[in-house]
Amino acid sequence: MAKKNEQFVTVLTDPNVDFPQWYTDVILQSEMVDYGPVKGTMVIRPYGYGMWENLQRQLDQRFKETGHQNAYFPMFIPESFLMKEAEHVEGFAPEVAWITMGGTEELTERIAVRPTSETIICSMYSKWIQSWRDLPVLINQWANVVRWEKTTRPFLRTSEFLWQEGHTVHATPEEAEEETQRMLEVYREFSENVLAIPMVTGRKTDKEKFAGAAATYSIEALMQDGKALQAGTSHNLGQHFSKAFEITFQNKEGKLEYGYQTSWGVSTRLLGAIVMVHGDQRGLVVPPRIAPIQVVIVPVAAHKGGVMEVCQQVEAELKAQGIRVRLDDRDTVSPGFKFNEWELKGVPLRLEIGPKDIEKGSALSMRRDTLEKAALPLEGIGETAARLLDDIHMGMLQKAKDYLAAHTYDVHTLEEMGERLDNGKGYVRAMWCGDRACEDAIKEKFSATARNMPFQQEEIDEHCICCGKKAKKLVYWARAY
Amino acid sequence: MAKKNEQFVTVLTDPNVDFPQWYTDVILQSEMVDYGPVKGTMVIRPYGYGMWENLQRQLDQRFKETGHQNAYFPMFIPESFLMKEAEHVEGFAPEVAWITMGGTEELTERIAVRPTSETIICSMYSKWIQSWRDLPVLINQWANVVRWEKTTRPFLRTSEFLWQEGHTVHATPEEAEEETQRMLEVYREFSENVLAIPMVTGRKTDKEKFAGAAATYSIEALMQDGKALQAGTSHNLGQHFSKAFEITFQNKEGKLEYGYQTSWGVSTRLLGAIVMVHGDQRGLVVPPRIAPIQVVIVPVAAHKGGVMEVCQQVEAELKAQGIRVRLDDRDTVSPGFKFNEWELKGVPLRLEIGPKDIEKGSALSMRRDTLEKAALPLEGIGETAARLLDDIHMGMLQKAKDYLAAHTYDVHTLEEMGERLDNGKGYVRAMWCGDRACEDAIKEKFSATARNMPFQQEEIDEHCICCGKKAKKLVYWARAY
Repeated sequence: MAKKNEQFVTVLTDPNVDFPQWYTDVILQSEMVDYGPVKGTMVIRPYGYGMWENLQRQLDQRFKETGHQNAYFPMFIPESFLMKEAEHVEGFAPEVAWITMGGTEELTERIAVRPTSETIICSMYSKWIQSWRDLPVLINQWANVVRWEKTTRPFLRTSEFLWQEGHTVHATPEEAEEETQRMLEVYREFSENVLAIPMVTGRKTDKEKFAGAAATYSIEALMQDGKALQAGTSHNLGQHFSKAFEITFQNKEGKLEYGYQTSWGVSTRLLGAIVMVHGDQRGLVVPPRIAPIQVVIVPVAAHKGGVMEVCQQVEAELKAQGIRVRLDDRDTVSPGFKFNEWELKGVPLRLEIGPKDIEKGSALSMRRDTLEKAALPLEGIGETAARLLDDIHMGMLQKAKDYLAAHTYDVHTLEEMGERLDNGKGYVRAMWCGDRACEDAIKEKFSATARNMPFQQEEIDEHCICCGKKAKKLVYWARAY
Repeated sequence: MAKKNEQFVTVLTDPNVDFPQWYTDVILQSEMVDYGPVKGTMVIRPYGYGMWENLQRQLDQRFKETGHQNAYFPMFIPESFLMKEAEHVEGFAPEVAWITMGGTEELTERIAVRPTSETIICSMYSKWIQSWRDLPVLINQWANVVRWEKTTRPFLRTSEFLWQEGHTVHATPEEAEEETQRMLEVYREFSENVLAIPMVTGRKTDKEKFAGAAATYSIEALMQDGKALQAGTSHNLGQHFSKAFEITFQNKEGKLEYGYQTSWGVSTRLLGAIVMVHGDQRGLVVPPRIAPIQVVIVPVAAHKGGVMEVCQQVEAELKAQGIRVRLDDRDTVSPGFKFNEWELKGVPLRLEIGPKDIEKGSALSMRRDTLEKAALPLEGIGETAARLLDDIHMGMLQKAKDYLAAHTYDVHTLEEMGERLDNGKGYVRAMWCGDRACEDAIKEKFSATARNMPFQQEEIDEHCICCGKKAKKLVYWARAY
């Protein structure tokens, strides 16, 4: 058993040596995920899916509070639909999985498995919407989507993934813009308050925007290897799709108008962000608010009189506080084995309870985020644990904010930019003239992309970092997943 | 407006004249569902999806209380996997949608879009399970599945539908059988207590069992046109799949054994059952426990002083009781229009509140199930409404039970069987010798199938109704969806 104990620690690659390998080790060994048999697919195992369920519930609540309803649209899209919006087809067609046979029958028109649902949803909206009275339409869908990708990694880029996609229609461009930004703010707030991940929010450049959008906004997170991860997007679609799909409504003046649309989404990619923002050498560090198990109780010398009884009592008190608690009463492995296993799985708080603790009227706690140990009085332990979980959340968020601040650099020359990207890691903030050529040059030179143009604009330089012309926008650049 | 009012009533086909057309009218006009662009697909609109969400939440809770965890497996299954279990491939291959292209690339092996997930899940289980310590594995998945059907109807039979599928592995055949029956009982209890639908529970004949199962059990509901609907199944898979997929474990004695498996599922088909069991000439009658809106408040003479204030107060009191309430404060349509609309949508309880009601200190209620009206005191209306919703549930369940009892006939001759199927409508209970030939003959003669062999067996005759040989089983027969 001692042997198996150590296994948990030693098989994880050092994240400072090989971050990608560490990531793969952690997600596989913590049993969050496994590889599916078809290339590029993933199996989300119960521990990973438990996080997704907690994430989904809390995000869905926010969607409903902002007036949205859920629905479900078919995943089968006729090829002709995908072709209707020019930019959209160009962006998505190369990644589509095509169904060409139903049973033994060859199909007359190929069917796309949805890479995103704008086209099929728009085809329904054009049927449902007639009058300004039907607006706004505020619908969200939780679904699987498919993109046939060449290079894949679990959560970050897989041929099938889970997501939500909001699709709304409004009577005015102002309302559509308001909705686009409202939902981005929902994502930002959710990421901080539930996932403990601070985000850089802003608008995408035209090069990086969604295929078919008028404007795309994004939340961008910074991983511990200094690479950025686009964690969610919100698109103002303008009338691009409503014109392609004839979504018209009679306005209050009796005139026929095309609707103004938005779409927005986050995916199981967020699970990858959680791993790479919070994890450490021992494995996962799961933010308490989405942790499938928030507190694990490990009995020490469980056979000794009274130990299991106290453990069960503590379990009941924590449950009464609404805490997701697991009493690990397995008698086939040692406490040390359990410690390592739950550390690898990133359970936010561990309580050890043995005869000596009981004598002292306390439990020995360990915070997964700081690894700090403390004796917690058994008296009122439910409330104490609830408070500690909040502290852990705040601590994790602060740590991630500090990391972000420490790895964000203002740069004024391309040399500086390269230096910071190579050695400093993280975001470089630099001014940009707005020309695609400069964006392309920076990507070519440094493999870095414009993550977004932050809402909080500052003029840190008068000149574009690349061409030296008059600068228009402050941009966050980074190497990215 | 008066014109539009009547529209809601008059466009519904009379269910006694043309039940299938009434069904289609109701589900489309209540905005539960719409047809998708690809043949056989459906769009589940917010009102229908709201029911599905309530259903899902309450069923999921039962799964978790019985020890199950959710996970997510890829919907892409290599063709070779489907081919591994002989009966399974025969049952499902003709209905598979095949992906043959990824982007612009022709695939070397065709990929099936899951018609059910036994094969892909088994391939993972064979990797994850080594020892008796890993058992039981109790996993459920909420997902979309695809079956390329020739004849489709929204909810009842569609090429894509939503469902849950439980997949478990056990160390002994007894445990697997216990699980199979436990989950069937979960379905039965859930159907009664949440959907207000009584079920006939029993075992399927070999002819009707799941392709690849050792034994299939089902819950069968009776629609108001006298046709049965298979509403859920639970399969004891024995070692069929574990042998095909090499799911082995070391038992406590150190010997390698094949696992014993189960699978079980219900789908969006249940939404169709709800419509056809409870609906009436005016439209849907939604069981309170899954109703997206449980109570609708309709202000009368809303412009009169105090009316809206009282309505809002009542709304708040109902919300405080945890009731899903909608205050219909639209000023673009009349109260009469609203009554018809909410009756079509089957909202269990309506409260009308106007100046006269307020004077009397009451609201005028109407139960959707019985159409009974009553004056409810405003004082304590939250609790009264909650109690009424429970009464409505009980009333709907009792009505459905009475219908089931009144349309279940014991028959002893084929003549009687035909007569009852044609004129009585519903289930005929008859003895059967156990031979496939008799089952085939009855299907041929009456288009009726063996729904199941009920758990509560009785010997109502010594002889098989078809061949006259010694009878072995009491069977529920019916025409079915």
